[in-house]
Amino acid sequence: MDSTRAKIRLFVDQPLGAGQAVALSQPQAHYLGNVLRKGPGTDVALFNNRDGEWRAELVELGKRGGVALCRMQSAPQRMPPDLWLIFAPIKKARTDFIVEKAAELGAARILPVQTAFTNSERIRQDRLQAHAVEAAEQCGGTFVPEVAALQPLGRLLDHWPNDRALIFADESLAEEARTASLPPAPAALLIGPEGGFSDGERTRLRAMAEVHPIALGPRVLRADTAAVAALTLWQSAQGDWR
Amino acid sequence: MDSTRAKIRLFVDQPLGAGQAVALSQPQAHYLGNVLRKGPGTDVALFNNRDGEWRAELVELGKRGGVALCRMQSAPQRMPPDLWLIFAPIKKARTDFIVEKAAELGAARILPVQTAFTNSERIRQDRLQAHAVEAAEQCGGTFVPEVAALQPLGRLLDHWPNDRALIFADESLAEEARTASLPPAPAALLIGPEGGFSDGERTRLRAMAEVHPIALGPRVLRADTAAVAALTLWQSAQGDWR
Repeated sequence: MDSTRAKIRLFVDQPLGAGQAVALSQPQAHYLGNVLRKGPGTDVALFNNRDGEWRAELVELGKRGGVALCRMQSAPQRMPPDLWLIFAPIKKARTDFIVEKAAELGAARILPVQTAFTNSERIRQDRLQAHAVEAAEQCGGTFVPEVAALQPLGRLLDHWPNDRALIFADESLAEEARTASLPPAPAALLIGPEGGFSDGERTRLRAMAEVHPIALGPRVLRADTAAVAALTLWQSAQGDWR
Repeated sequence: MDSTRAKIRLFVDQPLGAGQAVALSQPQAHYLGNVLRKGPGTDVALFNNRDGEWRAELVELGKRGGVALCRMQSAPQRMPPDLWLIFAPIKKARTDFIVEKAAELGAARILPVQTAFTNSERIRQDRLQAHAVEAAEQCGGTFVPEVAALQPLGRLLDHWPNDRALIFADESLAEEARTASLPPAPAALLIGPEGGFSDGERTRLRAMAEVHPIALGPRVLRADTAAVAALTLWQSAQGDWR
């Protein structure tokens, strides 16, 4: 196999191991055959969130699917730190972007929430999950974070696990948070919608023992920028960028 | 004036001061009149990179322009740290995004460069500059970074100022860079294209005394993610987020 060429990486929800035959889905077969114009004999890299990355060879490719045969493990399984990203989706393109970046930057779970100032009643969970898969395939990781179903922020806080720090990026807390250090995993980052949090939400958050406010500079960041900035700061201070 | 309502913020390249009349451009007049459906009497906030933010009142609005009258300064001028963002533009949407984020996160200058693995011959400098203006208007800042003309990376390095640190995010340097600390201003962040730098570029960069390599985690980041992550780390360590 030619290791110098760019790898084709595919996430598969199936066991991987030496000699294991792995079924590829119809969209994966379409991507390989019609987009990349590849055929049997092509080298691919597979990962499944459990068994690391495996080099495999495409042995069958049709319109409805394909089969790849695992040869050898090419990278160990690498789990992200136990970090959740909680955010309030608004505009489609920026929501897609947040999910893509969370997967790239190594979040373990992505939780969209409805807040007082969010007006999205529903999200396309399957489409967002597909974005997370694509980002993981692109970034060389061996893990795809789960995109949870949309839920009200209040319900999530009702059942908040008391061992998980909730890091809350909100401009109204900027001054007191300027010197705060970031807590270690298990942790979650909470990014508000463009309109910020309501007074009620803010009061509730500030009363929670698990909450750590953080500041993200003197300018007001868009929600997508704040998500990337918060993920970066946490990974750099407490995560797998150290 | 009602300070509780969301501000309409406009960048104007004209002097601001008490009683100063400020001409608004045709696009600004269109935005105020046709998009926001505002008319004379509307409160706006103006900034010009020099005189801070001024509250002003719209006194004339027509199809070809308008006039606002400055009342009082509402925020002091705040210059960003002396940080440049140098990046290799590829895809349009991601290039737009990098410029928007650089303005939001407080870069002082944005320099698009051609590298060995960039194939863009030209950029729409005016459109990118307009994105920077819009981001500055949105984020509450009083400064719009200049978007420079596209130039070859080699030419930029030929004339590199020897007092400016060049922070170079490149995955091939990850291991040695893991513990590097970020140098203070004046500084520049250099983000490569999706295909990375060529061997020649990397050799040249590594030979420069001003170069500081940094690592951005164990996954391979897209160029736009790397730009936001690097800006965040620098602002947090040496910039105006401290």
